[in-house]
Amino acid sequence: MNKEEYFIKQFSNSKFIGDDGAVVGSHVYSMDAFFENIHFKREWFSLKQIAYKAMIVNISDAIVMNAIPKYALLSVAIPSTYSTKELNQLSKGFKKAAKEFNIEIIGGDTISNNKLDISITIISKTKNPILRSSAKKDDLFCYTGTLGTCKKDLAKLFAGKKISKKSKFIKPKLNADFFYESSKYISSALDISDGLFFELQRVSKASNIGFEFFKQIHEDIGTSGEEYEILFSFNKKHLSKIEKIAKKHKVKLNIFAKAIKGKYETKSKNHHF
Amino acid sequence: MNKEEYFIKQFSNSKFIGDDGAVVGSHVYSMDAFFENIHFKREWFSLKQIAYKAMIVNISDAIVMNAIPKYALLSVAIPSTYSTKELNQLSKGFKKAAKEFNIEIIGGDTISNNKLDISITIISKTKNPILRSSAKKDDLFCYTGTLGTCKKDLAKLFAGKKISKKSKFIKPKLNADFFYESSKYISSALDISDGLFFELQRVSKASNIGFEFFKQIHEDIGTSGEEYEILFSFNKKHLSKIEKIAKKHKVKLNIFAKAIKGKYETKSKNHHF
Repeated sequence: MNKEEYFIKQFSNSKFIGDDGAVVGSHVYSMDAFFENIHFKREWFSLKQIAYKAMIVNISDAIVMNAIPKYALLSVAIPSTYSTKELNQLSKGFKKAAKEFNIEIIGGDTISNNKLDISITIISKTKNPILRSSAKKDDLFCYTGTLGTCKKDLAKLFAGKKISKKSKFIKPKLNADFFYESSKYISSALDISDGLFFELQRVSKASNIGFEFFKQIHEDIGTSGEEYEILFSFNKKHLSKIEKIAKKHKVKLNIFAKAIKGKYETKSKNHHF
Repeated sequence: MNKEEYFIKQFSNSKFIGDDGAVVGSHVYSMDAFFENIHFKREWFSLKQIAYKAMIVNISDAIVMNAIPKYALLSVAIPSTYSTKELNQLSKGFKKAAKEFNIEIIGGDTISNNKLDISITIISKTKNPILRSSAKKDDLFCYTGTLGTCKKDLAKLFAGKKISKKSKFIKPKLNADFFYESSKYISSALDISDGLFFELQRVSKASNIGFEFFKQIHEDIGTSGEEYEILFSFNKKHLSKIEKIAKKHKVKLNIFAKAIKGKYETKSKNHHF
Protein backbone atom coordinates (compact mmCIF):
# COMPACT_ATOMS: atom_id res chain seq x y z
CA MET A 1 0.00 0.00 0.00
CA ASN A 2 1.44 3.38 -0.94
CA LYS A 3 1.32 6.36 1.43
CA GLU A 4 -1.55 8.02 -0.39
CA GLU A 5 -3.68 4.90 0.03
CA TYR A 6 -2.55 4.52 3.64
CA PHE A 7 -3.59 8.08 4.49
CA ILE A 8 -6.97 7.76 2.75
CA LYS A 9 -7.56 4.46 4.57
CA GLN A 10 -7.56 6.37 7.88
CA PHE A 11 -10.85 7.92 6.78
CA SER A 12 -12.35 4.86 5.13
CA ASN A 13 -15.02 4.32 7.77
CA SER A 14 -16.96 7.01 5.90
CA LYS A 15 -19.48 5.58 3.46
CA PHE A 16 -18.88 8.61 1.24
CA ILE A 17 -15.23 7.88 0.48
CA GLY A 18 -14.06 5.67 -2.38
CA ASP A 19 -15.39 7.23 -5.57
CA ASP A 20 -14.50 10.17 -7.82
CA GLY A 21 -16.81 12.29 -5.69
CA ALA A 22 -18.90 12.00 -2.53
CA VAL A 23 -22.62 11.59 -3.08
CA VAL A 24 -24.69 13.38 -0.41
CA GLY A 25 -28.37 13.36 -1.31
CA SER A 26 -28.67 14.88 -4.77
CA HIS A 27 -25.26 16.58 -4.50
CA VAL A 28 -21.87 15.27 -5.53
CA TYR A 29 -18.78 16.86 -3.98
CA SER A 30 -15.35 16.32 -5.48
CA MET A 31 -11.97 17.91 -4.79
CA ASP A 32 -8.67 17.52 -6.62
CA ALA A 33 -5.27 19.11 -6.26
CA PHE A 34 -3.24 20.42 -9.21
CA PHE A 35 0.21 21.34 -7.93
CA GLU A 36 3.30 22.77 -9.60
CA ASN A 37 6.16 20.25 -9.97
CA ILE A 38 3.73 17.48 -8.97
CA HIS A 39 1.05 17.61 -11.69
CA PHE A 40 2.76 20.07 -14.02
CA LYS A 41 5.91 22.03 -14.58
CA ARG A 42 5.53 25.75 -15.12
CA GLU A 43 7.42 25.72 -18.43
CA TRP A 44 5.11 23.11 -19.97
CA PHE A 45 1.99 25.27 -19.91
CA SER A 46 0.81 28.83 -20.14
CA LEU A 47 -0.86 30.02 -16.92
CA LYS A 48 -4.19 30.05 -18.70
CA GLN A 49 -3.66 26.40 -19.73
CA ILE A 50 -2.75 25.45 -16.14
CA ALA A 51 -5.86 27.04 -14.64
CA TYR A 52 -8.03 25.56 -17.39
CA LYS A 53 -6.64 22.04 -16.90
CA ALA A 54 -6.98 22.34 -13.10
CA MET A 55 -10.69 22.99 -13.61
CA ILE A 56 -11.18 20.31 -16.28
CA VAL A 57 -9.64 17.48 -14.25
CA ASN A 58 -12.04 18.37 -11.45
CA ILE A 59 -15.06 18.68 -13.73
CA SER A 60 -14.18 15.25 -15.10
CA ASP A 61 -14.88 13.70 -11.67
CA ALA A 62 -18.39 15.16 -11.68
CA ILE A 63 -19.17 14.00 -15.22
CA VAL A 64 -18.17 10.35 -14.68
CA MET A 65 -20.51 10.25 -11.70
CA ASN A 66 -23.32 11.44 -13.98
CA ALA A 67 -23.51 14.72 -12.09
CA ILE A 68 -23.88 18.21 -13.54
CA PRO A 69 -21.19 20.53 -12.15
CA LYS A 70 -22.78 23.72 -10.81
CA TYR A 71 -20.32 25.54 -8.55
CA ALA A 72 -16.58 25.67 -7.94
CA LEU A 73 -14.43 26.78 -5.01
CA LEU A 74 -10.77 27.55 -5.77
CA SER A 75 -7.83 27.40 -3.39
CA VAL A 76 -5.04 29.10 -5.33
CA ALA A 77 -1.53 29.49 -3.93
CA ILE A 78 0.34 31.94 -6.16
CA PRO A 79 4.01 32.95 -6.23
CA SER A 80 4.26 36.55 -4.98
CA THR A 81 6.48 37.31 -7.99
CA TYR A 82 3.54 36.95 -10.41
CA SER A 83 2.56 40.12 -12.21
CA THR A 84 -0.95 41.48 -12.66
CA LYS A 85 -0.80 40.16 -16.23
CA GLU A 86 0.02 36.69 -14.96
CA LEU A 87 -2.83 36.83 -12.44
CA ASN A 88 -5.14 37.77 -15.30
CA GLN A 89 -3.99 34.79 -17.36
CA LEU A 90 -4.68 32.47 -14.45
CA SER A 91 -8.15 33.86 -13.84
CA LYS A 92 -8.91 33.64 -17.56
CA GLY A 93 -8.14 29.92 -17.55
CA PHE A 94 -10.43 29.26 -14.59
CA LYS A 95 -13.19 31.35 -16.16
CA LYS A 96 -12.85 29.70 -19.58
CA ALA A 97 -13.49 26.24 -18.15
CA ALA A 98 -16.27 27.55 -15.89
CA LYS A 99 -18.02 29.17 -18.84
CA GLU A 100 -17.67 26.08 -21.03
CA PHE A 101 -19.41 23.91 -18.42
CA ASN A 102 -21.79 26.57 -17.10
CA ILE A 103 -20.19 26.56 -13.63
CA GLU A 104 -20.17 29.49 -11.25
CA ILE A 105 -17.00 30.15 -9.23
CA ILE A 106 -18.45 30.98 -5.81
CA GLY A 107 -15.45 31.33 -3.53
CA GLY A 108 -12.27 29.86 -2.16
CA ASP A 109 -8.99 31.19 -0.89
CA THR A 110 -6.04 32.97 -2.49
CA ILE A 111 -2.63 32.95 -0.81
CA SER A 112 0.99 33.69 -1.52
CA ASN A 113 3.29 30.68 -1.93
CA ASN A 114 6.64 29.65 -3.41
CA LYS A 115 4.89 27.85 -6.30
CA LEU A 116 1.52 27.62 -8.03
CA ASP A 117 -0.61 25.10 -6.19
CA ILE A 118 -4.31 24.77 -6.95
CA SER A 119 -7.04 22.77 -5.21
CA ILE A 120 -10.57 22.87 -6.55
CA THR A 121 -13.87 21.71 -5.11
CA ILE A 122 -16.71 21.08 -7.54
CA ILE A 123 -20.30 20.99 -6.33
CA SER A 124 -22.53 19.02 -8.66
CA LYS A 125 -26.11 17.84 -8.87
CA THR A 126 -27.32 14.44 -9.91
CA LYS A 127 -30.53 12.44 -9.89
CA ASN A 128 -28.80 9.17 -10.64
CA PRO A 129 -25.14 8.95 -9.59
CA ILE A 130 -23.01 6.31 -11.31
CA LEU A 131 -20.53 4.67 -8.95
CA ARG A 132 -17.41 2.62 -9.51
CA SER A 133 -18.83 -0.02 -7.19
CA SER A 134 -21.82 -0.99 -9.31
CA ALA A 135 -20.30 -3.00 -12.17
CA LYS A 136 -21.88 -6.47 -12.48
CA LYS A 137 -20.52 -9.82 -13.60
CA ASP A 138 -20.79 -10.18 -17.41
CA ASP A 139 -20.88 -6.41 -17.95
CA LEU A 140 -18.80 -5.21 -20.87
CA PHE A 141 -15.96 -2.79 -20.13
CA CYS A 142 -15.13 0.06 -22.46
CA TYR A 143 -13.01 3.19 -22.61
CA THR A 144 -13.55 6.22 -24.77
CA GLY A 145 -11.09 7.71 -27.26
CA THR A 146 -7.47 6.79 -27.66
CA LEU A 147 -5.08 6.05 -24.80
CA GLY A 148 -1.32 6.42 -24.80
CA THR A 149 -0.69 9.88 -26.25
CA CYS A 150 -0.56 11.53 -22.83
CA LYS A 151 2.21 9.21 -21.68
CA LYS A 152 4.15 9.90 -24.89
CA ASP A 153 3.65 13.64 -24.61
CA LEU A 154 4.70 13.63 -20.97
CA ALA A 155 7.90 11.78 -21.93
CA LYS A 156 8.55 14.40 -24.62
CA LEU A 157 8.10 17.20 -22.08
CA PHE A 158 10.48 15.51 -19.64
CA ALA A 159 12.99 15.26 -22.49
CA GLY A 160 12.70 19.02 -23.02
CA LYS A 161 10.78 18.68 -26.29
CA LYS A 162 7.70 20.61 -27.34
CA ILE A 163 4.27 19.04 -27.71
CA SER A 164 1.22 20.20 -29.63
CA LYS A 165 -1.04 22.76 -27.97
CA LYS A 166 -3.85 20.42 -28.91
CA SER A 167 -2.39 17.54 -26.89
CA LYS A 168 -4.87 16.05 -24.46
CA PHE A 169 -2.12 16.42 -21.87
CA ILE A 170 -2.45 20.20 -22.23
CA LYS A 171 -6.18 20.31 -22.88
CA PRO A 172 -8.08 17.20 -21.83
CA LYS A 173 -11.23 16.55 -23.83
CA LEU A 174 -14.15 15.44 -21.72
CA ASN A 175 -16.89 13.36 -23.28
CA ALA A 176 -19.67 14.94 -21.22
CA ASP A 177 -22.50 14.95 -23.75
CA PHE A 178 -21.92 11.33 -24.76
CA PHE A 179 -21.73 10.22 -21.14
CA TYR A 180 -24.82 12.03 -19.88
CA GLU A 181 -26.88 10.73 -22.79
CA SER A 182 -25.64 7.14 -22.29
CA SER A 183 -25.84 7.27 -18.50
CA LYS A 184 -29.06 5.30 -18.15
CA TYR A 185 -27.35 2.32 -19.79
CA ILE A 186 -24.11 2.52 -17.80
CA SER A 187 -23.47 0.44 -14.67
CA SER A 188 -20.17 1.89 -13.43
CA ALA A 189 -17.71 4.56 -14.47
CA LEU A 190 -14.58 6.46 -13.55
CA ASP A 191 -12.22 8.77 -15.36
CA ILE A 192 -8.77 7.64 -16.46
CA SER A 193 -6.53 9.91 -14.43
CA ASP A 194 -3.80 7.52 -13.26
CA GLY A 195 -3.96 5.08 -16.19
CA LEU A 196 -6.35 2.36 -17.36
CA PHE A 197 -4.68 -0.46 -15.35
CA PHE A 198 -4.93 1.50 -12.10
CA GLU A 199 -8.56 2.45 -12.74
CA LEU A 200 -9.37 -1.20 -13.51
CA GLN A 201 -7.81 -2.16 -10.19
CA ARG A 202 -10.10 0.36 -8.50
CA VAL A 203 -13.27 -0.94 -10.20
CA SER A 204 -12.22 -4.50 -9.44
CA LYS A 205 -11.92 -3.70 -5.74
CA ALA A 206 -15.04 -1.53 -5.54
CA SER A 207 -17.31 -3.84 -7.58
CA ASN A 208 -15.67 -7.09 -6.46
CA ILE A 209 -15.10 -8.36 -10.02
CA GLY A 210 -12.24 -9.47 -12.25
CA PHE A 211 -11.78 -9.07 -16.00
CA GLU A 212 -11.59 -11.33 -19.04
CA PHE A 213 -9.66 -9.27 -21.57
CA PHE A 214 -10.59 -9.61 -25.26
CA LYS A 215 -7.05 -8.73 -26.29
CA GLN A 216 -3.83 -7.84 -24.53
CA ILE A 217 -3.49 -4.17 -23.60
CA HIS A 218 -0.01 -2.78 -24.05
CA GLU A 219 1.73 -1.25 -21.03
CA ASP A 220 1.99 2.09 -22.89
CA ILE A 221 -1.80 2.17 -23.19
CA GLY A 222 -2.60 0.84 -19.73
CA THR A 223 -0.26 3.11 -17.80
CA SER A 224 -0.88 6.36 -19.66
CA GLY A 225 -2.20 8.77 -17.01
CA GLU A 226 -4.05 12.09 -17.21
CA GLU A 227 -6.02 10.89 -20.22
CA TYR A 228 -9.41 11.89 -18.77
CA GLU A 229 -11.09 9.43 -21.07
CA ILE A 230 -13.95 7.54 -19.45
CA LEU A 231 -13.76 3.92 -18.33
CA PHE A 232 -17.24 2.48 -17.99
CA SER A 233 -19.24 -0.74 -17.90
CA PHE A 234 -22.66 -1.73 -19.16
CA ASN A 235 -24.91 -4.73 -19.63
CA LYS A 236 -24.30 -6.11 -23.12
CA LYS A 237 -27.98 -5.75 -24.04
CA HIS A 238 -27.37 -1.97 -24.17
CA LEU A 239 -24.43 -2.23 -26.60
CA SER A 240 -26.20 -1.01 -29.74
CA LYS A 241 -27.85 1.91 -27.94
CA ILE A 242 -24.51 3.05 -26.49
CA GLU A 243 -22.80 2.64 -29.88
CA LYS A 244 -25.47 4.80 -31.49
CA ILE A 245 -25.01 7.59 -28.92
CA ALA A 246 -21.23 7.38 -29.31
CA LYS A 247 -21.55 7.70 -33.08
CA LYS A 248 -23.79 10.74 -32.69
CA HIS A 249 -21.20 12.45 -30.47
CA LYS A 250 -18.22 11.19 -32.52
CA VAL A 251 -16.81 9.30 -29.53
CA LYS A 252 -14.63 6.27 -30.22
CA LEU A 253 -15.48 3.25 -28.08
CA ASN A 254 -12.99 0.51 -27.16
CA ILE A 255 -14.76 -2.51 -25.73
CA PHE A 256 -11.88 -4.51 -24.30
CA ALA A 257 -13.06 -6.77 -21.48
CA LYS A 258 -15.92 -8.51 -19.73
CA ALA A 259 -16.45 -8.58 -15.97
CA ILE A 260 -15.95 -12.01 -14.46
CA LYS A 261 -15.79 -13.46 -10.96
CA GLY A 262 -12.36 -12.67 -9.55
CA LYS A 263 -9.96 -9.90 -8.80
CA TYR A 264 -7.70 -7.73 -10.95
CA GLU A 265 -4.40 -6.29 -9.78
CA THR A 266 -1.87 -4.52 -11.95
CA LYS A 267 1.86 -5.01 -11.47
CA SER A 268 2.59 -1.71 -13.20
CA LYS A 269 3.89 1.09 -11.05
CA ASN A 270 1.74 4.09 -10.34
CA HIS A 271 3.37 7.50 -10.44
CA HIS A 272 1.99 8.33 -6.99
CA PHE A 273 4.27 8.56 -3.99
CA MET B 1 -4.93 46.78 -3.80
CA ASN B 2 -2.77 43.76 -2.98
CA LYS B 3 -2.42 40.82 -5.37
CA GLU B 4 -4.78 38.62 -3.39
CA GLU B 5 -7.52 41.24 -3.66
CA TYR B 6 -6.72 41.81 -7.32
CA PHE B 7 -7.06 38.11 -8.12
CA ILE B 8 -10.32 37.74 -6.19
CA LYS B 9 -11.69 40.84 -7.93
CA GLN B 10 -11.50 38.96 -11.25
CA PHE B 11 -14.34 36.78 -9.98
CA SER B 12 -16.33 39.47 -8.21
CA ASN B 13 -19.21 39.44 -10.67
CA SER B 14 -20.44 36.41 -8.71
CA LYS B 15 -23.05 37.31 -6.13
CA PHE B 16 -21.71 34.48 -3.95
CA ILE B 17 -18.24 35.95 -3.42
CA GLY B 18 -17.36 38.37 -0.63
CA ASP B 19 -18.15 36.60 2.62
CA ASP B 20 -16.54 33.92 4.79
CA GLY B 21 -18.51 31.37 2.81
CA ALA B 22 -20.80 31.19 -0.23
CA VAL B 23 -24.49 30.83 0.56
CA VAL B 24 -26.31 28.65 -2.00
CA GLY B 25 -29.85 27.91 -0.86
CA SER B 26 -29.62 26.39 2.59
CA HIS B 27 -25.97 25.42 2.11
CA VAL B 28 -22.85 27.41 2.94
CA TYR B 29 -19.60 26.46 1.20
CA SER B 30 -16.27 27.70 2.50
CA MET B 31 -12.68 26.84 1.60
CA ASP B 32 -9.44 27.91 3.23
CA ALA B 33 -5.81 27.04 2.64
CA PHE B 34 -3.38 26.20 5.45
CA PHE B 35 0.10 25.98 3.96
CA GLU B 36 3.51 25.23 5.44
CA ASN B 37 5.81 28.27 5.65
CA ILE B 38 2.81 30.48 4.81
CA HIS B 39 0.41 29.83 7.68
CA PHE B 40 2.70 27.78 9.88
CA LYS B 41 6.23 26.50 10.25
CA ARG B 42 6.63 22.79 10.78
CA GLU B 43 8.67 23.21 13.97
CA TRP B 44 5.98 25.30 15.67
CA PHE B 45 3.36 22.57 15.79
CA SER B 46 2.95 18.83 16.06
CA LEU B 47 1.37 17.31 12.95
CA LYS B 48 -1.78 16.61 14.94
CA GLN B 49 -1.94 20.29 15.93
CA ILE B 50 -1.46 21.40 12.32
CA ALA B 51 -4.26 19.21 11.00
CA TYR B 52 -6.51 20.22 13.89
CA LYS B 53 -5.91 23.94 13.33
CA ALA B 54 -6.41 23.57 9.55
CA MET B 55 -9.87 22.18 10.29
CA ILE B 56 -10.72 24.72 13.00
CA VAL B 57 -9.92 27.80 10.89
CA ASN B 58 -12.26 26.41 8.24
CA ILE B 59 -15.01 25.50 10.69
CA SER B 60 -14.76 29.06 12.02
CA ASP B 61 -15.97 30.40 8.65
CA ALA B 62 -19.10 28.26 8.86
CA ILE B 63 -19.88 29.27 12.45
CA VAL B 64 -19.68 33.03 11.87
CA MET B 65 -22.18 32.64 9.03
CA ASN B 66 -24.54 30.91 11.47
CA ALA B 67 -24.17 27.66 9.57
CA ILE B 68 -23.74 24.18 11.04
CA PRO B 69 -20.72 22.44 9.47
CA LYS B 70 -21.70 18.98 8.22
CA TYR B 71 -19.07 17.68 5.80
CA ALA B 72 -15.43 18.31 4.96
CA LEU B 73 -13.28 17.65 1.90
CA LEU B 74 -9.50 17.64 2.43
CA SER B 75 -6.80 18.38 -0.12
CA VAL B 76 -3.61 17.30 1.64
CA ALA B 77 -0.19 17.62 0.02
CA ILE B 78 2.27 15.61 2.12
CA PRO B 79 6.08 15.37 1.95
CA SER B 80 6.96 11.90 0.68
CA THR B 81 9.47 11.61 3.54
CA TYR B 82 6.68 11.38 6.13
CA SER B 83 6.49 8.08 7.98
CA THR B 84 3.36 6.05 8.63
CA LYS B 85 3.44 7.39 12.19
CA GLU B 86 3.47 10.95 10.90
CA LEU B 87 0.56 10.22 8.55
CA ASN B 88 -1.33 8.84 11.54
CA GLN B 89 -0.68 12.02 13.55
CA LEU B 90 -2.01 14.12 10.69
CA SER B 91 -5.16 12.05 10.29
CA LYS B 92 -5.74 12.14 14.06
CA GLY B 93 -5.73 15.95 14.02
CA PHE B 94 -8.29 16.10 11.21
CA LYS B 95 -10.46 13.51 12.92
CA LYS B 96 -10.25 15.20 16.33
CA ALA B 97 -11.67 18.46 14.96
CA ALA B 98 -14.25 16.59 12.88
CA LYS B 99 -15.46 14.67 15.93
CA GLU B 100 -15.62 17.79 18.08
CA PHE B 101 -17.91 19.54 15.61
CA ASN B 102 -19.77 16.44 14.41
CA ILE B 103 -18.43 16.76 10.86
CA GLU B 104 -17.95 13.87 8.47
CA ILE B 105 -14.85 13.85 6.25
CA ILE B 106 -16.31 12.72 2.93
CA GLY B 107 -13.45 12.98 0.46
CA GLY B 108 -10.72 15.05 -1.09
CA ASP B 109 -7.31 14.41 -2.56
CA THR B 110 -3.96 13.29 -1.15
CA ILE B 111 -0.76 13.99 -3.05
CA SER B 112 2.99 14.01 -2.57
CA ASN B 113 4.64 17.43 -2.27
CA ASN B 114 7.79 19.13 -0.98
CA LYS B 115 5.90 20.55 2.01
CA LEU B 116 2.67 20.09 3.95
CA ASP B 117 -0.05 22.12 2.25
CA ILE B 118 -3.67 21.70 3.24
CA SER B 119 -6.86 23.09 1.68
CA ILE B 120 -10.21 22.28 3.23
CA THR B 121 -13.75 22.72 1.99
CA ILE B 122 -16.50 22.77 4.60
CA ILE B 123 -20.11 22.12 3.61
CA SER B 124 -22.55 23.63 6.09
CA LYS B 125 -26.27 24.04 6.51
CA THR B 126 -28.09 27.15 7.64
CA LYS B 127 -31.63 28.44 7.82
CA ASN B 128 -30.55 32.00 8.46
CA PRO B 129 -27.09 32.96 7.20
CA ILE B 130 -25.44 35.99 8.81
CA LEU B 131 -23.49 38.08 6.32
CA ARG B 132 -20.82 40.72 6.68
CA SER B 133 -22.89 43.00 4.46
CA SER B 134 -25.89 43.35 6.76
CA ALA B 135 -24.65 45.66 9.52
CA LYS B 136 -26.87 48.71 9.96
CA LYS B 137 -26.16 52.30 11.02
CA ASP B 138 -26.26 52.63 14.84
CA ASP B 139 -25.56 48.90 15.35
CA LEU B 140 -23.11 48.19 18.14
CA PHE B 141 -19.88 46.38 17.22
CA CYS B 142 -18.35 43.79 19.47
CA TYR B 143 -15.64 41.15 19.49
CA THR B 144 -15.42 38.08 21.67
CA GLY B 145 -12.58 37.14 23.99
CA THR B 146 -9.17 38.78 24.18
CA LEU B 147 -7.17 39.98 21.18
CA GLY B 148 -3.42 40.38 20.97
CA THR B 149 -2.02 37.14 22.35
CA CYS B 150 -1.74 35.51 18.93
CA LYS B 151 0.43 38.35 17.65
CA LYS B 152 2.64 38.08 20.73
CA ASP B 153 2.90 34.31 20.44
CA LEU B 154 3.72 34.52 16.75
CA ALA B 155 6.51 36.99 17.52
CA LYS B 156 7.86 34.56 20.15
CA LEU B 157 7.83 31.72 17.63
CA PHE B 158 9.66 33.84 15.06
CA ALA B 159 12.23 34.61 17.76
CA GLY B 160 12.76 30.88 18.27
CA LYS B 161 11.00 30.83 21.66
CA LYS B 162 8.44 28.33 22.89
CA ILE B 163 4.79 29.17 23.47
CA SER B 164 2.16 27.43 25.56
CA LYS B 165 0.37 24.45 24.03
CA LYS B 166 -2.80 26.16 25.15
CA SER B 167 -2.07 29.29 23.07
CA LYS B 168 -4.95 30.24 20.80
CA PHE B 169 -2.33 30.40 18.04
CA ILE B 170 -1.86 26.64 18.41
CA LYS B 171 -5.44 25.77 19.27
CA PRO B 172 -8.02 28.43 18.35
CA LYS B 173 -11.09 28.43 20.55
CA LEU B 174 -14.30 28.92 18.62
CA ASN B 175 -17.32 30.41 20.35
CA ALA B 176 -19.82 28.29 18.44
CA ASP B 177 -22.44 27.71 21.15
CA PHE B 178 -22.55 31.38 22.13
CA PHE B 179 -22.80 32.48 18.52
CA TYR B 180 -25.54 30.08 17.42
CA GLU B 181 -27.65 30.95 20.47
CA SER B 182 -27.19 34.72 19.89
CA SER B 183 -27.58 34.52 16.14
CA LYS B 184 -31.16 35.79 15.98
CA TYR B 185 -29.99 39.08 17.54
CA ILE B 186 -26.90 39.51 15.35
CA SER B 187 -26.88 41.66 12.20
CA SER B 188 -23.43 40.90 10.75
CA ALA B 189 -20.42 38.79 11.64
CA LEU B 190 -17.03 37.56 10.53
CA ASP B 191 -14.13 35.80 12.20
CA ILE B 192 -10.93 37.61 13.08
CA SER B 193 -8.41 35.83 10.92
CA ASP B 194 -6.30 38.71 9.59
CA GLY B 195 -6.77 41.10 12.53
CA LEU B 196 -9.59 43.29 13.87
CA PHE B 197 -8.66 46.36 11.77
CA PHE B 198 -8.71 44.37 8.53
CA GLU B 199 -11.99 42.71 9.39
CA LEU B 200 -13.50 46.12 10.21
CA GLN B 201 -12.37 47.36 6.82
CA ARG B 202 -14.19 44.40 5.24
CA VAL B 203 -17.45 45.05 7.13
CA SER B 204 -17.21 48.75 6.34
CA LYS B 205 -16.96 48.00 2.63
CA ALA B 206 -19.58 45.24 2.60
CA SER B 207 -22.15 47.05 4.77
CA ASN B 208 -21.29 50.56 3.59
CA ILE B 209 -20.77 51.94 7.09
CA GLY B 210 -18.08 53.63 9.17
CA PHE B 211 -17.32 53.35 12.88
CA GLU B 212 -17.42 55.61 15.89
CA PHE B 213 -14.94 54.02 18.31
CA PHE B 214 -15.71 54.20 22.04
CA LYS B 215 -12.02 54.06 22.84
CA GLN B 216 -8.81 53.85 20.91
CA ILE B 217 -7.78 50.31 19.94
CA HIS B 218 -4.05 49.67 20.19
CA GLU B 219 -2.21 48.49 17.07
CA ASP B 220 -1.17 45.28 18.88
CA ILE B 221 -4.84 44.43 19.41
CA GLY B 222 -6.11 45.53 16.00
CA THR B 223 -3.47 43.78 13.92
CA SER B 224 -3.30 40.49 15.81
CA GLY B 225 -4.27 37.85 13.25
CA GLU B 226 -5.38 34.23 13.52
CA GLU B 227 -7.35 35.02 16.65
CA TYR B 228 -10.55 33.35 15.41
CA GLU B 229 -12.56 35.42 17.82
CA ILE B 230 -15.84 36.67 16.38
CA LEU B 231 -16.46 40.25 15.28
CA PHE B 232 -20.19 40.95 15.14
CA SER B 233 -22.79 43.70 15.19
CA PHE B 234 -26.27 43.98 16.63
CA ASN B 235 -29.06 46.45 17.27
CA LYS B 236 -28.54 47.96 20.73
CA LYS B 237 -32.00 46.87 21.85
CA HIS B 238 -30.63 43.31 21.93
CA LEU B 239 -27.67 44.16 24.18
CA SER B 240 -28.96 42.61 27.41
CA LYS B 241 -30.08 39.43 25.68
CA ILE B 242 -26.68 38.97 24.05
CA GLU B 243 -24.88 39.74 27.32
CA LYS B 244 -26.96 37.10 29.10
CA ILE B 245 -26.10 34.45 26.48
CA ALA B 246 -22.41 35.44 26.64
CA LYS B 247 -22.44 35.06 30.43
CA LYS B 248 -24.03 31.62 30.15
CA HIS B 249 -21.28 30.46 27.77
CA LYS B 250 -18.51 32.31 29.65
CA VAL B 251 -17.68 34.42 26.59
CA LYS B 252 -16.13 37.85 27.16
CA LEU B 253 -17.71 40.62 25.09
CA ASN B 254 -15.89 43.80 24.04
CA ILE B 255 -18.33 46.38 22.72
CA PHE B 256 -16.00 48.92 21.15
CA ALA B 257 -17.79 50.88 18.41
CA LYS B 258 -21.02 51.99 16.84
CA ALA B 259 -21.80 51.92 13.13
CA ILE B 260 -22.09 55.39 11.59
CA LYS B 261 -22.43 56.79 8.10
CA GLY B 262 -19.01 56.72 6.50
CA LYS B 263 -16.13 54.47 5.59
CA TYR B 264 -13.35 52.84 7.57
CA GLU B 265 -9.91 52.09 6.22
CA THR B 266 -6.94 50.89 8.23
CA LYS B 267 -3.43 52.11 7.54
CA SER B 268 -1.94 49.05 9.17
CA LYS B 269 -0.23 46.55 6.94
CA ASN B 270 -1.78 43.19 6.34
CA HIS B 271 0.53 40.17 6.32
CA HIS B 272 -0.86 39.07 2.96
CA PHE B 273 1.22 39.25 -0.21
